Amino acid sequence: MNVQGKAYRTVWMDNNIVYLINQPKLPHRFEILPHHDTESVAIAIETMVVRGAGAIGATGAFGLAQAAQLASTDTFWDDVNAAKHRLAHTRPTAQNLFYGLNKVYMAMTLTSSIADARTAAIIAAQSVADEDAEACRQIGIHGAERISTGMRISTHCNAGWLAFVDWGSAISPVYVAHRQGKKPFVFVDETKPRGQGARLTAWELAGEGVDHAVIADNATGFYMAHGEIDMVIVGSDRIASNGDVANKIGTYTSALAAHANGIPFYVAAPLATVDWDCASGTDIPIEERSADEIHYTWGWSDDGDFTRVRTTPQQSNARNPAFDVTPAKYITGIITEKGIVKPNELGQFRPK
Amino acid sequence: MNVQGKAYRTVWMDNNIVYLINQPKLPHRFEILPHHDTESVAIAIETMVVRGAGAIGATGAFGLAQAAQLASTDTFWDDVNAAKHRLAHTRPTAQNLFYGLNKVYMAMTLTSSIADARTAAIIAAQSVADEDAEACRQIGIHGAERISTGMRISTHCNAGWLAFVDWGSAISPVYVAHRQGKKPFVFVDETKPRGQGARLTAWELAGEGVDHAVIADNATGFYMAHGEIDMVIVGSDRIASNGDVANKIGTYTSALAAHANGIPFYVAAPLATVDWDCASGTDIPIEERSADEIHYTWGWSDDGDFTRVRTTPQQSNARNPAFDVTPAKYITGIITEKGIVKPNELGQFRPK
Repeated sequence: MNVQGKAYRTVWMDNNIVYLINQPKLPHRFEILPHHDTESVAIAIETMVVRGAGAIGATGAFGLAQAAQLASTDTFWDDVNAAKHRLAHTRPTAQNLFYGLNKVYMAMTLTSSIADARTAAIIAAQSVADEDAEACRQIGIHGAERISTGMRISTHCNAGWLAFVDWGSAISPVYVAHRQGKKPFVFVDETKPRGQGARLTAWELAGEGVDHAVIADNATGFYMAHGEIDMVIVGSDRIASNGDVANKIGTYTSALAAHANGIPFYVAAPLATVDWDCASGTDIPIEERSADEIHYTWGWSDDGDFTRVRTTPQQSNARNPAFDVTPAKYITGIITEKGIVKPNELGQFRPK
Repeated sequence: MNVQGKAYRTVWMDNNIVYLINQPKLPHRFEILPHHDTESVAIAIETMVVRGAGAIGATGAFGLAQAAQLASTDTFWDDVNAAKHRLAHTRPTAQNLFYGLNKVYMAMTLTSSIADARTAAIIAAQSVADEDAEACRQIGIHGAERISTGMRISTHCNAGWLAFVDWGSAISPVYVAHRQGKKPFVFVDETKPRGQGARLTAWELAGEGVDHAVIADNATGFYMAHGEIDMVIVGSDRIASNGDVANKIGTYTSALAAHANGIPFYVAAPLATVDWDCASGTDIPIEERSADEIHYTWGWSDDGDFTRVRTTPQQSNARNPAFDVTPAKYITGIITEKGIVKPNELGQFRPK
C-alpha cells in the first residue's frame, strides 16, 4: 500500500538483504530496517519488528531463502536446516510462518544441485509473498460484498496490510468497500498489551482516509450493546480444520459480545492460515510473551522520544498470553481468497 | 488500610481542608493533596485525583460540608446551593456522589440556624464516610463466605479501599478471605484506558500481601475459558432497581465471558450505590471522557518521571465511554452490607 505516496510491502528481499518496516515505531516514525543474516531476521520476528500472520510467513520464507544464499557450499544443508530450525522457533502460534518455511524448503529439496536450490529458494520465497498479497486482494473483494454503505465495522489487533505482505486480511474488505464509495466506519480496538490496533490499524486507516475511532478494548461490548456496530471482521494466526480460530488475545471476548448482540462476526484469512493437521482450537499452541509487555507501555513522549512508561507496581506479577481461541460456533463466516464459507464448510478447500 | 505502616482513608477533612490521596500518581508515589475550597475539590473529582464510587461519595459530602464552613453568613444558602450544584456536576454516573451530597444537604436543611447547619454538615459528612467504611467491612465479611481456599478471583478496575473510604467493595471479600488464611489469588484486569487495575488494585493487593497477576483486559476471557478463574467480583458505580449494574467500561464483556463459561459473577456494592428511582440500566447516564485518555498512557519513565506517551496517530479520532451496563441476568449475586442477594431480590432492601 502507499506510504507518503510510495508503494510499499511489509517485507521484501533485495541482494540477499531482507528489508522490513520497523512496526514498533509506527505510527510516529516510518523506518525500513535491513536484515543481513538469519539471526537478525529471527530476532526481528521475535521482537515484533515484523508481526502479523502473513508478514511473518513471508519474512520466514525470505529469511530461509537468504540463508540458502549465504550458506557455505561445504555445509549447505546443515546451514539451511539450522536456519529453518531457528526461524521456526521464533513464534509458535502463527501457521503462516510454518507454511512459508515449508514452501521454500520443499522447493529446495526438489532440486538436484546447490546452485539450483539457491535459485529455487528465492523463487519460492517471492512466490509465498506474491501469493499472500494476491490472496489478501481476493479476500478484500469477497469481503466487501458483505459491507453495505455506511456500515460500522469493529476490528481487533492489526490484520491490515502491515500484518501481511500487502492489503491485509480483515481490513482488505474495508479498503475495497472504501474504494467502492461505501464509506465504512471502523471501531479500532486498541489491542493491549502491544496496541497494534491503536498504532498500526489506526495508522493504516488514516493513510487510506477511512473514517475510524480508536477505542479501549473494554469499550467494544459497549458499542455493540448500543447498536453502534454492524459487523466484526478480525484476522487469524491459525485456523483449525474444524473452524476454531486462534487470533490476538481479546478476539474471543469480542466474539462473545457479538454473539450476545446478534452481530455478524467474520474471520478473514488466506487459506495458508489453516492448519489442516490441527483438529480443533485446543490443539493450537498459545504463546505466552514477556510480562514486561504488561508492565510497560511504549510510545512517543511529548519531546518526540520513543520511550516506555511503567504502569504497574514493581512488586506485582503479570501474565501475558498473546492469543486466544474463538470456537467455530461464534463465527458467522470465514472470508478466504476462494470465497466466504461457514467454519464447518472449510473442509471443501482442503488440499487433496 | 495500611500504607507504609500507617492507617489511611482515601479522604478526610480536618480544619476545613479536604485531604485526598493523589491516586493518578500511584503506585509509584504516595502523596496526600490538600483541597481548600469547593472548586479544587470539584476539579479533584473531575480529574480523578479521587475516583471510585464510595470515595467520590465521601469527597462530595466533605466538599459540601467544607463549603458550609466557608460560606458567607450573608449569602449562606446561595453559597451552599452553588457548591452543591458544582460538586454534583463533576461526574454523572456514580450514584454515591448524589447520595453523599443529599445526605449532607438534608441534614443542613433540618436545622434552624446557620451555625447549626454548619455543624450538621460536618457530622453528616463524617457519617457518610464512616457508613461507607462500615458497609464495605460488612461486604467483606459476607463476600468472603463465597470464597473457598485457593480460589482464583477475577476483578475489573479498582473496587478496593482506594475506591471507597476504606476496605473497598469487590476487594473487601478478598482481604477478609486472605486474613482467614484462604490464600485467594487475584487476576487483576489492567482496566484501560486509565489502568486502575494495573495501578491501584495491584498496589493494594501487593500492600496486603495477596497473590495476584496483572493481565490485559483482553486476557480475562482466555483465563476463564482455560478454567483458571473460579469467580468474578466487581464493584459498581450505580445499580438500577431491577439489578442492572453500571460499572467501569469492560465489566459487561467480563460478565459475558463468565456467563459463557459458567463462572459465578458477583457485584459488590454498599446499598448507597443503588438508585431506587432508576428502573433499569438504560436509564443510567454514561459519562464519555476525553479522547486523550485513549491517545496517551501515563506512567513512570525509567528516569523516575511521571510522564505520558502517545500511542495513537495524530490524525486518528478516539472515543471513550467510561462505564457500561451489565444486565441483571448475567449477575449471580449482589454483595451488600446486609447480605448477598440475587439482582431481582434487591427490592427487599428498598428504604420504606
